[in-house]
Amino acid sequence: MGRKNKKGKVEAIANINEDFSAWYVDVVRQAKLADYTSLKGCMVIRPYGFALWENMKAVLDKMIKDTGHVNASFPLFIPESLLQKEADHVEGFAPEVAWVTHGGDKELEERVAIRPTSEAIICSIYSKWVQSYRDLPILINQWANVVRWEKVTRLFLRTTEFHWQEGHTCHRTEDEALVEARKMLDVYESFYQDFLAVPVLKGLKSESEKFAGARSTFSVEALMQDGKALQAGTTHDLGQHFAKVFDITFLDEDETSKHVWQTSWGLSTRSIGALIMTHGDERGLRLPPKVAPVQIIIIPILFDDSREETLKYCNYVKEILSDYRVELDESDKSPGWKFAEAELRGIPLRLEIGPRDMKVDQVTMARRDTGDKRPVLVEDLAKQVGECLEDIQRELLTQALKYREEHTFTVATLDELAEQLTEQRGFYHAPWCGDAACETAVKEKTKATIRCLPFDQPKDKGNCLVCGKPAQHQAIFARAY
Amino acid sequence: MGRKNKKGKVEAIANINEDFSAWYVDVVRQAKLADYTSLKGCMVIRPYGFALWENMKAVLDKMIKDTGHVNASFPLFIPESLLQKEADHVEGFAPEVAWVTHGGDKELEERVAIRPTSEAIICSIYSKWVQSYRDLPILINQWANVVRWEKVTRLFLRTTEFHWQEGHTCHRTEDEALVEARKMLDVYESFYQDFLAVPVLKGLKSESEKFAGARSTFSVEALMQDGKALQAGTTHDLGQHFAKVFDITFLDEDETSKHVWQTSWGLSTRSIGALIMTHGDERGLRLPPKVAPVQIIIIPILFDDSREETLKYCNYVKEILSDYRVELDESDKSPGWKFAEAELRGIPLRLEIGPRDMKVDQVTMARRDTGDKRPVLVEDLAKQVGECLEDIQRELLTQALKYREEHTFTVATLDELAEQLTEQRGFYHAPWCGDAACETAVKEKTKATIRCLPFDQPKDKGNCLVCGKPAQHQAIFARAY
Repeated sequence: MGRKNKKGKVEAIANINEDFSAWYVDVVRQAKLADYTSLKGCMVIRPYGFALWENMKAVLDKMIKDTGHVNASFPLFIPESLLQKEADHVEGFAPEVAWVTHGGDKELEERVAIRPTSEAIICSIYSKWVQSYRDLPILINQWANVVRWEKVTRLFLRTTEFHWQEGHTCHRTEDEALVEARKMLDVYESFYQDFLAVPVLKGLKSESEKFAGARSTFSVEALMQDGKALQAGTTHDLGQHFAKVFDITFLDEDETSKHVWQTSWGLSTRSIGALIMTHGDERGLRLPPKVAPVQIIIIPILFDDSREETLKYCNYVKEILSDYRVELDESDKSPGWKFAEAELRGIPLRLEIGPRDMKVDQVTMARRDTGDKRPVLVEDLAKQVGECLEDIQRELLTQALKYREEHTFTVATLDELAEQLTEQRGFYHAPWCGDAACETAVKEKTKATIRCLPFDQPKDKGNCLVCGKPAQHQAIFARAY
Repeated sequence: MGRKNKKGKVEAIANINEDFSAWYVDVVRQAKLADYTSLKGCMVIRPYGFALWENMKAVLDKMIKDTGHVNASFPLFIPESLLQKEADHVEGFAPEVAWVTHGGDKELEERVAIRPTSEAIICSIYSKWVQSYRDLPILINQWANVVRWEKVTRLFLRTTEFHWQEGHTCHRTEDEALVEARKMLDVYESFYQDFLAVPVLKGLKSESEKFAGARSTFSVEALMQDGKALQAGTTHDLGQHFAKVFDITFLDEDETSKHVWQTSWGLSTRSIGALIMTHGDERGLRLPPKVAPVQIIIIPILFDDSREETLKYCNYVKEILSDYRVELDESDKSPGWKFAEAELRGIPLRLEIGPRDMKVDQVTMARRDTGDKRPVLVEDLAKQVGECLEDIQRELLTQALKYREEHTFTVATLDELAEQLTEQRGFYHAPWCGDAACETAVKEKTKATIRCLPFDQPKDKGNCLVCGKPAQHQAIFARAY
């Protein structure tokens, strides 16, 4: 983007309707959110992308703290013997673990895993911290990097190293843990809907899709503009599986020793991918004002005889808007180039200021979401900008909800699902008997998987789309990232 | 600390004057700042310690941004071939690098290092980003975990994995890079003195102590209460060493291709160790109010007949102080136990509230730094608390400066240094010819190293403490962590 381009305009990005995948990579790289490095699957998050992530982190961190959690930091490394303690867990993660075998010139006595997730190391530590019911609940979160040696990678969506937060909690009762797992799912829902303007569905994962070692996994699922679903965050009711394996016990008020009940929950830099693929359009990113690194860009329309004066006026306007995240583009690019670049970067509001605007004490305000453009008097600017940013935030959610509604269908049989999916991807509600064989049959025929089993279930669930037996659930099927 | 203790008081900590090392570990563990894990040298930073680090990070992050830098995130991994490109650099770090050799079941074609520091990976990326003088300067920082496989470890001071920020900048001119390296050293000085109340000396490192691959290394050096020095942060003028090896070139305005000039600079969780060892006393931590996770603790003096009323009053007082970080200790421990625990945790201000205080609308305010105790009317409380916290912040710095002054000496010969060091550790100013052999002679005889060469040098430097030749520098020697 920008300087290296001799043509004086931004590089073309792939057409979003023709090649969504190419569009995605183009947007991520040309908007300078992130880029590949020489090491396969490892990305660099560039300053613009990282500023976005910092804003998202700040929002989620506050929500996590407001629900009573505190942050801590656990080791990057997990000794192999610890990771192997919980059988399902190691089976689920072993194929993608990166192993450290040498420290300096010395071969280690026991090789250590780089955490793919931290249940094993954290549970081994909790077993020392928890003694009495008075030590409960333990409500700890950490922001960390984790590593999963992936074969196929894509910027933000699936990378060898990624950043996330992982909460790990211990409770006195089974019920309390379940309430926690559901509560954090609500937090994730609110984070997506209220801040990223990304609508999500909540529900229970099927047995085959649940977290390795969990009793139940819940997820929030978003629908991208290519009709594919994205698992956007998960919370796990771990039951007492890990507590038993890692011996996390407490002396209860009744003087008997009991195992704790646990949860874990995580949300990663993948959420940036969800944001991009929910809101982007043919011109690039569209960022929700609440998390946009730059909410307003001021673009001066410069002429030789009024250059200084215009820039001075732009700085004055910037000053007025100091409650917002404002950038003034003083570079020597043409206004058209700057407009295109601001659109590519998804900046919610653009203010154009030229000599004609200045004469009548106004600026031209353009919205990234709708393209609407109108003059605003400088004396009204701070108020108008505030209202407009709120409106953009709402509008992005409205548009995304509309897209989801238009791409949500109900089908009764596998044939129907297969046929419709060839024409139109999206969320497909269908009855399911609960049998893994039927789930597999769907996957083999349509590549669609069960995204989740929604919490609100109809009374009459009909008959399984595959075997025709009475359905246990109304499931949501989709092709997914 | 606390609950597991049947005696109803906090566990004893080692005597600070008799065994400083044991005192340090006791304080870190019993105040629940951090603890060891089953993996040698890897620590867990517990919620109280992490809240302290979060406050410190917030302060330093703002200072880094206010000086024009932006954050980004670079990969955890460095392919071996990249790390080996700069000869001095790899030689300096190779002995302590953790190597990943396997991803899942597959042996990697090329093993990858876990970053011990990120110059190699970042320079390889910068070589793509920098093309024109218009791309300069690049002013990027990252908050990251790094790994150095250490033989001897100590909580916060030297751990296998640690957290830090590392800045990596590229400049058009030699002079601009030098200015940057010195500017960030000033930022570190201000961070320590103005926020942690830890006085530091600034200066140039000797050749033998400089960063592997740097042209010059500058450092801030603090003096701990056992008279040992702690290197508390470093900035490096990298010259063009890395730029040449990694081919970071730009087309200058004069149309010629040039290598950039670089700096890097880092400050780590070691700073928490500096904080503890500068201010702690026989009762535990003493935390500077500006970064203390809890600035004020309210301890109710409870009696059966006024319990509810007292707690209600305490909550009312807490409400009044909502601009501060306040904790109300409602646990069922005795007041004496709570006092000792609050002291161990280094909470700057303690408010005691009992029925007698309530009757006259006052609280008893006790300072952690001096132990002073006095009644304060509730109507004056917010103001008094604010002033008192400021005074504590000042007082901690004053005490630390006084300690440093009392432990700073000037010597003329190696014999003098050796003799004085057996009685009293501290900073020793001495003339040095600049020859590494003399530096080594000092180290072998006294275990003291050159901490830095201060920027302000006397005109008449005297003769080298070892060889007697004319001194090039007035150096500061000390035994160090």
